[in-house]
Amino acid sequence: MTRLTNFQNDWLPKIDNQLNLDLEKVSSDDHVATMLKYAVLNGGKRLRPLLTLAIVASFDQKITSSILKAATAVEWVHSYSLVHDDLPAMDNDLIRRGQPSVHARFGEAEAILVGDALLTGAFDVVVTANDNANENEAIGADELLAMVQNLSHQAGGSGMVLGQVHDMQNHNAQGVSDKDWLINDVYVPKTAALLQYAALSGGRLAYFSETVEHTQTNQDLFNIGSHFGIAFQIQDDLDDFDQDDQEDVGSLPHLIGVAAARQQRDQYLAKAQQLVTEVSKRETSFDRTLLDDFLNLIGDKI
Amino acid sequence: MTRLTNFQNDWLPKIDNQLNLDLEKVSSDDHVATMLKYAVLNGGKRLRPLLTLAIVASFDQKITSSILKAATAVEWVHSYSLVHDDLPAMDNDLIRRGQPSVHARFGEAEAILVGDALLTGAFDVVVTANDNANENEAIGADELLAMVQNLSHQAGGSGMVLGQVHDMQNHNAQGVSDKDWLINDVYVPKTAALLQYAALSGGRLAYFSETVEHTQTNQDLFNIGSHFGIAFQIQDDLDDFDQDDQEDVGSLPHLIGVAAARQQRDQYLAKAQQLVTEVSKRETSFDRTLLDDFLNLIGDKI
Repeated sequence: MTRLTNFQNDWLPKIDNQLNLDLEKVSSDDHVATMLKYAVLNGGKRLRPLLTLAIVASFDQKITSSILKAATAVEWVHSYSLVHDDLPAMDNDLIRRGQPSVHARFGEAEAILVGDALLTGAFDVVVTANDNANENEAIGADELLAMVQNLSHQAGGSGMVLGQVHDMQNHNAQGVSDKDWLINDVYVPKTAALLQYAALSGGRLAYFSETVEHTQTNQDLFNIGSHFGIAFQIQDDLDDFDQDDQEDVGSLPHLIGVAAARQQRDQYLAKAQQLVTEVSKRETSFDRTLLDDFLNLIGDKI
Repeated sequence: MTRLTNFQNDWLPKIDNQLNLDLEKVSSDDHVATMLKYAVLNGGKRLRPLLTLAIVASFDQKITSSILKAATAVEWVHSYSLVHDDLPAMDNDLIRRGQPSVHARFGEAEAILVGDALLTGAFDVVVTANDNANENEAIGADELLAMVQNLSHQAGGSGMVLGQVHDMQNHNAQGVSDKDWLINDVYVPKTAALLQYAALSGGRLAYFSETVEHTQTNQDLFNIGSHFGIAFQIQDDLDDFDQDDQEDVGSLPHLIGVAAARQQRDQYLAKAQQLVTEVSKRETSFDRTLLDDFLNLIGDKI
């Protein structure tokens, strides 16, 4: 059992509990609340909040109630994106995590609105992160504003939404011809952008109470999220290769072959590991074990 | 020419300019930027930002660059809601303000994503409101966090999104039987919620630099937004009465008749006027002229 497995066993139930608590409060209408919980509380791995919390822990910082709540906002954004991506006008997926997708279960209009409510609610989760905090553990207002700004940027028209626009173009094309476009204009904004946010947030939440600047470490964490996100997406494509083949969807294994896609994946993982090494050298309080375990989640199943 | 007309002539171009500036920056992709601008810069009346700014001016406060920018965020949310409401799965409207609606012009998937990007970007507009401000005119971080929280609440699963969920139920029903349900569960969340936010924001932005609490005035402004919003929606229904009749859509004039709907509208306007009077009595710096003009926007065309 890796240290990350222990960490997941500790924190996954707490993340789910926090999500449940906030989802209970977000609508005054029982049916809307039911739909929102259906969309989020469906057995997700909570990879993004876990990455944030793992980085906080890697800096030997306590995960306070404020940090836990702030870390879950990205899961609201991720969940909304899945609900909207599954819509008939997008990927038209009827199944999500083994259950009917939100539009298959509740209807198309309702699924659009469920996604809208989750996206709207995500920003409330950030700005109310201190609601149950001791005063001396509260996250500063400027830090929360920066999180809202980063989340909006990574999720919006230069981030995740842009990635989905490009992915739709990709689906509609007969074939993708450019590996760099696929990685930089689809995988980075669509998948890596929220992992960039999650990783950067982990650093910022770890040392928000310090006066020291961590400019280079912030940049490294952002890039670790980026490389991890690209490798994660390539792995996802490798896992789905047979299915995608039937649907005639462009993905990296289609474009450059399975062996070359694996090689690309491993190159991004190696870049991420190199950056973890650089953070380790720079930051004396930093323990790399959890992040190494995170990067080891991706690879060929043996 | 009313004082409000002069105020509109001054501030409408500045609101549109601010919207344009921020829309230019929200996507790194030209096509996405084009779609976002198409959705917002289409001749809207900017009623919600104007209400916020009119209230700031009513308290004899200067409208700084920060206040102007903060006031425009609600227009992003309003614009996204129109894009999503027009979708085939919702109201299936092909025309918006005399032009093809976003999905009619760019496609359904694109319209979902345009709405998502506008909603996401709205929160960035709030938290970056001080970007071009002199330091002594900057809005405090706690005030900006409160605006994010209020905007999320009024737009989300207990606010505008809930109103649209109920409105879809209303559209699908053969007939609406309950006037109170229509007003309190459709009109208030769907239409009044953003006007409540706009009015409350006007007050908070007017006196954010004071240490005095304005609890009762905040409540009164919120309720002025509420009554104005309900009256505005009833007027909209009265204006659309013939068209809705063909589409068999439930609205207040269908339910209780045109004369009774007009009476309801005037009752809400009177309630709003009464609250303006109470704010006038309480707040020595407050001039009611602009708000009276606002309320006079609604009524029978003579």
